[in-house]
Amino acid sequence: MSNIYSTLERLHITLPPMAKPAAAYQPFCVSGSMVYLSGHIAKKEGLPWVGQLGLTMNTEEGQAAARSVAIDLMGTLQAACQSLGHDLEAVKQIVKVTSLVNSTPEYTQQHLVTNGCSELLAEVFQSKGLHARSAFGVVQLPMGACVEIEMIVELNA
Amino acid sequence: MSNIYSTLERLHITLPPMAKPAAAYQPFCVSGSMVYLSGHIAKKEGLPWVGQLGLTMNTEEGQAAARSVAIDLMGTLQAACQSLGHDLEAVKQIVKVTSLVNSTPEYTQQHLVTNGCSELLAEVFQSKGLHARSAFGVVQLPMGACVEIEMIVELNA
Amino acid sequence: MSNIYSTLERLHITLPPMAKPAAAYQPFCVSGSMVYLSGHIAKKEGLPWVGQLGLTMNTEEGQAAARSVAIDLMGTLQAACQSLGHDLEAVKQIVKVTSLVNSTPEYTQQHLVTNGCSELLAEVFQSKGLHARSAFGVVQLPMGACVEIEMIVELNA
Repeated sequence: MSNIYSTLERLHITLPPMAKPAAAYQPFCVSGSMVYLSGHIAKKEGLPWVGQLGLTMNTEEGQAAARSVAIDLMGTLQAACQSLGHDLEAVKQIVKVTSLVNSTPEYTQQHLVTNGCSELLAEVFQSKGLHARSAFGVVQLPMGACVEIEMIVELNA
Repeated sequence: MSNIYSTLERLHITLPPMAKPAAAYQPFCVSGSMVYLSGHIAKKEGLPWVGQLGLTMNTEEGQAAARSVAIDLMGTLQAACQSLGHDLEAVKQIVKVTSLVNSTPEYTQQHLVTNGCSELLAEVFQSKGLHARSAFGVVQLPMGACVEIEMIVELNA
Repeated sequence: MSNIYSTLERLHITLPPMAKPAAAYQPFCVSGSMVYLSGHIAKKEGLPWVGQLGLTMNTEEGQAAARSVAIDLMGTLQAACQSLGHDLEAVKQIVKVTSLVNSTPEYTQQHLVTNGCSELLAEVFQSKGLHARSAFGVVQLPMGACVEIEMIVELNA
């Protein structure tokens, strides 16, 4: 088994099927060797993970939510790879992560929340999982979700 | 007439000339076969379409604003294509849409607002108009606009 | 001396070393001829430049902060070029700037704040510095910073 899939197994992570968009768009778009993944909102038991950092959630809970989004993103990324006849081994590198954290005007730890996603990507993809990133506080998210994360990934040609 | 332009005609849509940036940047940048379109704010009768979802505007009004931004984006995209000696027929696919919705902390339908843009793109460009997307709530936008949308588009080589 | 470095010298700008990420990500990621630069927060004397537009900072101060982020971004961009055996002369064009301005719900001049960054890029890189851009208001930023800016840059092949 590859490093990627054996790591997922060791972490007891089962990748979900591709996320279903909540509206008129697609979960991913392939352009050349790049995959653009739509913003994925955090979910809990299949429903939007509702909350706001600084109000109803603390940093640790936010990290758990961001980690769960990383798992959903990997599920969609796997589906994107499969649509091209590959699997996650085709990933050359995670290029960019953009993380939108539902925040009060006082909450300032969006970077720590987003580590819940970034650290899992680095653990699963190792050096290929190191990425550029932006994280910031948004006033609200679709369906009240606490975190939304999008991603750009480069595949091997 | 091509499908794209006949659809625009059927919808009684006249594309505007390229948007004029409000500040020190350009409406688009071409890099290889990709066109990066700047964030376009919603406008009404040539002025910023001022408003905030959840406060002075409802979802239906937000959708109308997002649809108007899609028209302005197509105008700028057409100008980008023309700068390369083409027209909108050169579009290979709409790759990514990022939608910033001016929202109160309670408003959670940014995805439905953004459909006003996404659905028009899909109608005009058909399967080439299906895109990856993120939509989220921002606390405020330049000149008080209710919606700002940016786009990445791939052209045929 | 090249135009880029002589302009920096004329402006008395010394580029800092590559920014150190505050969390589990990298300051930049190279993908083909593109460099994706992580969101860089404004800093003052090495510490996060804390503030919010419309509350504790005015537009002029915000522009100064955005200008300082441009300098930090150029430092990281230079490091990215050096990792490939080049320097800033390898820049083909600044493609996209995304600017997140820590704003009150009433503040609407995010575009003017961001000019502090855009105008310096245009001065240093001349026509290669003209870029697509989005600027918007965010409810809060990591460590309370007043501005965060990310960038996509194309290098000569």
